[in-house]
Amino acid sequence: MKINPHFSQLKESYLFSTVGKKTAEFQKTHPGREVIRLSIGDVTRPLAPVVIEAMHRAVDDMSRRETFKGYGPDQTCYGYGVLLDSIQGSYARKGVALGTDEIFISDGAKSDLGNILDIFSEENVVLVPDPVYPVYVDTNVMAGRKILYADANEQNGFLPMPDPAVKADLIYLCSPNNPTGAAYSKEQLKEWVRYALAQDAVILYDAAYEYFITDPSLARSIYEVEGAKDCAIEFCSYSKTAGFTGVRCGYTVVPRSLVREGTPLNRLWARRQSTKFNGVSYITQMGAAAVFTEEGERQIRENLGYYRENARLIFSCLEELGIGYTGGKNSPYVWMKCPFGMDSWTFFDYLLENAAVVGTPGSGFGKNGEGFFRLTSFGTRENTAEACSRLKNLLLR
Amino acid sequence: MKINPHFSQLKESYLFSTVGKKTAEFQKTHPGREVIRLSIGDVTRPLAPVVIEAMHRAVDDMSRRETFKGYGPDQTCYGYGVLLDSIQGSYARKGVALGTDEIFISDGAKSDLGNILDIFSEENVVLVPDPVYPVYVDTNVMAGRKILYADANEQNGFLPMPDPAVKADLIYLCSPNNPTGAAYSKEQLKEWVRYALAQDAVILYDAAYEYFITDPSLARSIYEVEGAKDCAIEFCSYSKTAGFTGVRCGYTVVPRSLVREGTPLNRLWARRQSTKFNGVSYITQMGAAAVFTEEGERQIRENLGYYRENARLIFSCLEELGIGYTGGKNSPYVWMKCPFGMDSWTFFDYLLENAAVVGTPGSGFGKNGEGFFRLTSFGTRENTAEACSRLKNLLLR
Repeated sequence: MKINPHFSQLKESYLFSTVGKKTAEFQKTHPGREVIRLSIGDVTRPLAPVVIEAMHRAVDDMSRRETFKGYGPDQTCYGYGVLLDSIQGSYARKGVALGTDEIFISDGAKSDLGNILDIFSEENVVLVPDPVYPVYVDTNVMAGRKILYADANEQNGFLPMPDPAVKADLIYLCSPNNPTGAAYSKEQLKEWVRYALAQDAVILYDAAYEYFITDPSLARSIYEVEGAKDCAIEFCSYSKTAGFTGVRCGYTVVPRSLVREGTPLNRLWARRQSTKFNGVSYITQMGAAAVFTEEGERQIRENLGYYRENARLIFSCLEELGIGYTGGKNSPYVWMKCPFGMDSWTFFDYLLENAAVVGTPGSGFGKNGEGFFRLTSFGTRENTAEACSRLKNLLLR
Repeated sequence: MKINPHFSQLKESYLFSTVGKKTAEFQKTHPGREVIRLSIGDVTRPLAPVVIEAMHRAVDDMSRRETFKGYGPDQTCYGYGVLLDSIQGSYARKGVALGTDEIFISDGAKSDLGNILDIFSEENVVLVPDPVYPVYVDTNVMAGRKILYADANEQNGFLPMPDPAVKADLIYLCSPNNPTGAAYSKEQLKEWVRYALAQDAVILYDAAYEYFITDPSLARSIYEVEGAKDCAIEFCSYSKTAGFTGVRCGYTVVPRSLVREGTPLNRLWARRQSTKFNGVSYITQMGAAAVFTEEGERQIRENLGYYRENARLIFSCLEELGIGYTGGKNSPYVWMKCPFGMDSWTFFDYLLENAAVVGTPGSGFGKNGEGFFRLTSFGTRENTAEACSRLKNLLLR
């Protein structure tokens, strides 16, 4: 009996546990001080009323023999038609035509981003940006794949572009990016698509934050770029779009025209999912299907508007302070440069000690994150405004 | 770019699609005839009232900022305390003491049975019974593992026992079994535990149907056997217990004392899940937590009693006809011998043509299934009774 030998190569991430520990210690030694957390990547607004109503109806369906639902429809990997249709419609409004058999419903983008690797050879070389969402790295370390990094830094606006000298098989792109908030333009994505096609590579495109995009020059789907259907898989999520972090629903697009070694990847993914997955709760699917209705879109835009205004408060404060940043405009994340040349953890301690505000040290996301700091817009309005006023008091002194 | 080369070794299973196709053809050519399906492995009874009430309350929690829930608690791999406590209590009533950190909540046993393989080396040799739930085989084929089979047949009552001459690292046991309905006694499981410990192997114990067990000599958990916590992972599901096939919730037990190559498998699984999974819907978890309350247990026993009575109708009918079978008594499945020495598909066609009753040909589950046929108790009472009377009319002629 042998365990997977690659697990021992995983680096333990102490990022969020250290943030938590330091915050708890501070609270213990400063019992009267109210700590504000702009570190969380989790939403705080409740689900939209249309979603709540649809879920109550779905729960009632499950209570009656005539309307009870067992296993989801197996010809579509357990996705209900009404949900697939609504996602198809949402893509159509972005100018992207998809078949419902190209859309796979799942319990979230994180699961799919990890599980998709099952369909690829362990010999493939992986290219990930740095700084990066740690899941891209860890899931490939577990499988023993070789990982290359594309530097995201101030020089390239935290948007690395392809280097034709680098040969990679699987390419992770996340736009708008976690943690940097930077988002690719359609022109930039064209270059990535051209590079992937030339290399016979596959792009794994994480679009979890696409609903935060308002600038029309930025891509909301990689399929807005010609040729992407021949080289890209796109991962989407209701988590940040509709506050589903605790509900768990996402969708992954594998175009029929995406073929490698003569095999349609759509068929491989369908086989993987029908073998190692059994679908998403009917109740969850009915809630998700309400998101892209006319009234649903109106309601979730209201929630997103709330977070956008939080982001505006944060970046306006940074602008007033003359601190450089990316993100905040088409993203829930604001990625700021640490002031006074501090490194990420020094600034973390400084901000906690002097302003009782918690953020996330950029160095926790990769070497290029050193000297940067992530703030999120997912808190409440009052806390965000108070945090900004504390930042100003501290840094304008 | 290479795809996973092992996918090409997967055998396409035409079992259920062929069953569906033949049934559809029959219906087309016999428009007046009402076809009864005793082939389905899916439940038909609605969710219990306590589950429905808990889910409505949970949906309401998600509608208010004060009670809204985002990501589940990460220190327990996203499982809520109330659910973990109820599962812990359910085990305690079977005489099994577990820590809540040994229980992992998931979206179903099928997902976990596939995903657990991530923590094991691909060099491990796998032992699966034949006939078998196809997922055990396919998930290992995808990873390129060598698979050995343990013959389950009439001679051993479809309960194969360990052969000390066979060396295996991962051993799948499913009791009560799908498809044969046979269930191991505690004495028999003791032998498997002894064998696994001697071989340094790990048993993957699929207990999805344990709630159908009424005979006290049969094990409802492998942990009722001493030593099992040092060699077994147990997979459980609300799917058949509480009708959750369309809700998706299961739980997997990885004891802290289960250590291989010096590494606790509990820690490896926690790492796998926190990297490639993000938990189960809060609404689903609250519904599941209601199942093992006093009132919940009473209500689900009522539903299980309904299916048990269906099973009794089926096996009583077979006894009247003098046809041999296993299962039905501590299992929702009845595994019958095909009459007149027919092979599985011949009997399928004979039964469909002459009685308009659909079952599942045993040969679809493996070579030892040839000559056998699976009937399930998950239909309605009326249909089950009608199917039995048609069987009698046909076979007593």
